[in-house]
Amino acid sequence: MSELTHFDKSGRASMVDITRKEITERVAVAKGRVYIKPETIKRIEEDNIKKGDVITVAKIAGIMAAKRVDELIPLCHKLSLTDVKIDLKIDKKGSFLEITCTVKSTGKTGVEMEALTGVSITALTIYDMCKAVDREIMLSDIRLMEKRGGKSGHFVRKTGD
Amino acid sequence: MSELTHFDKSGRASMVDITRKEITERVAVAKGRVYIKPETIKRIEEDNIKKGDVITVAKIAGIMAAKRVDELIPLCHKLSLTDVKIDLKIDKKGSFLEITCTVKSTGKTGVEMEALTGVSITALTIYDMCKAVDREIMLSDIRLMEKRGGKSGHFVRKTGD
Amino acid sequence: MSELTHFDKSGRASMVDITRKEITERVAVAKGRVYIKPETIKRIEEDNIKKGDVITVAKIAGIMAAKRVDELIPLCHKLSLTDVKIDLKIDKKGSFLEITCTVKSTGKTGVEMEALTGVSITALTIYDMCKAVDREIMLSDIRLMEKRGGKSGHFVRKTGD
Amino acid sequence: MSELTHFDKSGRASMVDITRKEITERVAVAKGRVYIKPETIKRIEEDNIKKGDVITVAKIAGIMAAKRVDELIPLCHKLSLTDVKIDLKIDKKGSFLEITCTVKSTGKTGVEMEALTGVSITALTIYDMCKAVDREIMLSDIRLMEKRGGKSGHFVRKTGD
Amino acid sequence: MSELTHFDKSGRASMVDITRKEITERVAVAKGRVYIKPETIKRIEEDNIKKGDVITVAKIAGIMAAKRVDELIPLCHKLSLTDVKIDLKIDKKGSFLEITCTVKSTGKTGVEMEALTGVSITALTIYDMCKAVDREIMLSDIRLMEKRGGKSGHFVRKTGD
Amino acid sequence: MSELTHFDKSGRASMVDITRKEITERVAVAKGRVYIKPETIKRIEEDNIKKGDVITVAKIAGIMAAKRVDELIPLCHKLSLTDVKIDLKIDKKGSFLEITCTVKSTGKTGVEMEALTGVSITALTIYDMCKAVDREIMLSDIRLMEKRGGKSGHFVRKTGD
Repeated sequence: MSELTHFDKSGRASMVDITRKEITERVAVAKGRVYIKPETIKRIEEDNIKKGDVITVAKIAGIMAAKRVDELIPLCHKLSLTDVKIDLKIDKKGSFLEITCTVKSTGKTGVEMEALTGVSITALTIYDMCKAVDREIMLSDIRLMEKRGGKSGHFVRKTGD
Repeated sequence: MSELTHFDKSGRASMVDITRKEITERVAVAKGRVYIKPETIKRIEEDNIKKGDVITVAKIAGIMAAKRVDELIPLCHKLSLTDVKIDLKIDKKGSFLEITCTVKSTGKTGVEMEALTGVSITALTIYDMCKAVDREIMLSDIRLMEKRGGKSGHFVRKTGD
Repeated sequence: MSELTHFDKSGRASMVDITRKEITERVAVAKGRVYIKPETIKRIEEDNIKKGDVITVAKIAGIMAAKRVDELIPLCHKLSLTDVKIDLKIDKKGSFLEITCTVKSTGKTGVEMEALTGVSITALTIYDMCKAVDREIMLSDIRLMEKRGGKSGHFVRKTGD
Repeated sequence: MSELTHFDKSGRASMVDITRKEITERVAVAKGRVYIKPETIKRIEEDNIKKGDVITVAKIAGIMAAKRVDELIPLCHKLSLTDVKIDLKIDKKGSFLEITCTVKSTGKTGVEMEALTGVSITALTIYDMCKAVDREIMLSDIRLMEKRGGKSGHFVRKTGD
Repeated sequence: MSELTHFDKSGRASMVDITRKEITERVAVAKGRVYIKPETIKRIEEDNIKKGDVITVAKIAGIMAAKRVDELIPLCHKLSLTDVKIDLKIDKKGSFLEITCTVKSTGKTGVEMEALTGVSITALTIYDMCKAVDREIMLSDIRLMEKRGGKSGHFVRKTGD
Repeated sequence: MSELTHFDKSGRASMVDITRKEITERVAVAKGRVYIKPETIKRIEEDNIKKGDVITVAKIAGIMAAKRVDELIPLCHKLSLTDVKIDLKIDKKGSFLEITCTVKSTGKTGVEMEALTGVSITALTIYDMCKAVDREIMLSDIRLMEKRGGKSGHFVRKTGD
């Protein structure tokens, strides 16, 4: 049975020692949804065609947060990310924005927390910029889709897309 | 019709000028869920009874992030929070952890972003500490429940609980 | 003769004690220029019409930096800014971008460092986004234009515009 | 024709993927000027002979900022700098301080933003410490002088010195 | 019997709610010692007479850290300090540097953590700058000397000086 | 005679250039004591048996601070730590908590500042959580115990344990 790695022998929370782990190329892809009222979606979309401000601001926030995960998540290591890409897609039918964050690094540990944090802060920034017209916006389905590199191999999420 | 306040007259993203807004007592309550496999829930619960480490670490991360929202969300103001409380409840039947974050401040603008960010980083920290045994953990239903203080009055979320 | 306030009686660098200063509304306006080759100016302008990405990213960076001046400038106080506005104007004839940063606060000390830092980081971000095509971009004429509030009264820069 | 690298195929602002770039030794040198009134220059110079406080504080601020460029400039990568040197020279004839910042790193991308940011924050700190006696101080001519390492080869600025 | 205030009714770590506390003027004074070999003390003293660099760098580090206590100490509130003073005295007989940090604020909670952190980071910076010649430097006797303002009244340390 | 490495030829404070230093595995161990009244020690111990909150919060603070040393200590390099472990032991007889922080890294410079900062912030967090019942808590004996890796070889502290 696999173990909770962030705990030492006495069961106390602890950083994972990665000193002896191999340096490999790492990729993680996370997704998340921001459920918004149709009329707010429409405004973001029109803005996107004209100036892209909501989307640009939210992406920048997500990229900047992915770079600072070690300051936010207590037991994460400081990593030098080699790439952070954030993509936003409007799903008018489902009335949500789908955020995809892809993070790459060449290092000793995975970058899934960076991808998930990138999605979360992008989503929170969208909330912030639209909250005056829609306070019931909901962030949902923030999840890891794929992870490559390192000892644990290639993970692809089975449920959801 | 209410307006997207984070945009200036030319439609560009912009901070809201709160110079002349009144100082009032502000409260915001946000909630969110972390869907986890039953066997991982069980481990967290046992740990909680014994030492509470997963839950303590996640709460600390959420509190610290709520204090730094202005560094994470580009157009948020720097606020002096007077209280941040994070509460975690295990729902074994639904197989999720419910996170509640309550933030208070005495200032010129609301604290909903602080409450929502507190929930999100608490949830991401739980993911981080449990990811070795459960990569499919999903963060969902992150939403504002209640907001008091300021010109816009008392908001209580109608849908969900 | 006026004194260098950031020095104590022995001449050592020191924070200014603002404990007993009055809380007043404060405004500061700073400006600066980014000299860029005409062909790069043209690209930014076209992008601005279409999507505004260079300009939006640079403005966001400037706003976020203005909020963190106390972490960057050693003897500055932590302030709660009530507004940060950044405006960019393309001067094709002079081949430069003019950045204007206006900062407001209600507090015990001025916000000129916040306005000047907002201009500087906006300018540096423009450099970063255009450096692949124009390494000789130069940041110039970063200066305080106006300052209101507090004991020292209303300052308006006489030279330059 | 060379391309703006910080934009993806759709023209949106984006981080540059450096995953596959080679690790080489990188050096960047930037300069900038702080124009100050002769009498303020004189004070700084006397202080420099006696205690060096203005200059030491400004240099420390510049070094610390160079290390945090990835938090300030949205699309910059987090880098491990191996050296940051800041040099200040008083030019009494021209009535300015000349700041030179030299940054080194062993990594996958250049360090010119770190050198330019080091100069800018050093200059802003000088402004802060002298603003009580000279509000018209102006930061100018902040520019990249030289850059070595990486695929783009050795750059030396042709104009200015 | 007085209570550990950082714990909620269930005994869990928790921020103290200061929403309803009064705004008063607050002062805290902390001290600490850095024990150093006599020959290293001598070097710092000579440098102090000439340029003051070790002492200036260490003071700046302490001031900057005092301003960021809320990011370092998990349950501390973000405060707007109105003054931070750090004083260093060389005690050749005792072979130590005595650091005194005085912090002021006008707010709802005390500033003793800011004063103690100011002392600690000043001391650590002295260690950093002298470690090449003296690895056995020891930080000791970091303690609160005095505290004024707020409901708990005036505290003056009885033991030590 | 060995030299103060953080100073350039003119005697000014300066970062150490590590560009050409070898990458080796580095370990540093630091210790420190928090002197607390016996009745407060007893409370922490009981809490530790039940929930471990004081100790968990303090450890998390120490780990997070060790990761951010380059932001706190002006001339320290940004390092990617591969492990940070913090251990707390209650010494009822001596009426103190003994904190041990072990830091590992694979890089070009040592990690003793990270270990010493980890101890210091853990100690300050304990002070913060217990200060309501014991304001006279004192931090003492913060010292480097051991250091391995790099050119300077293996250091083991001779005095104290």
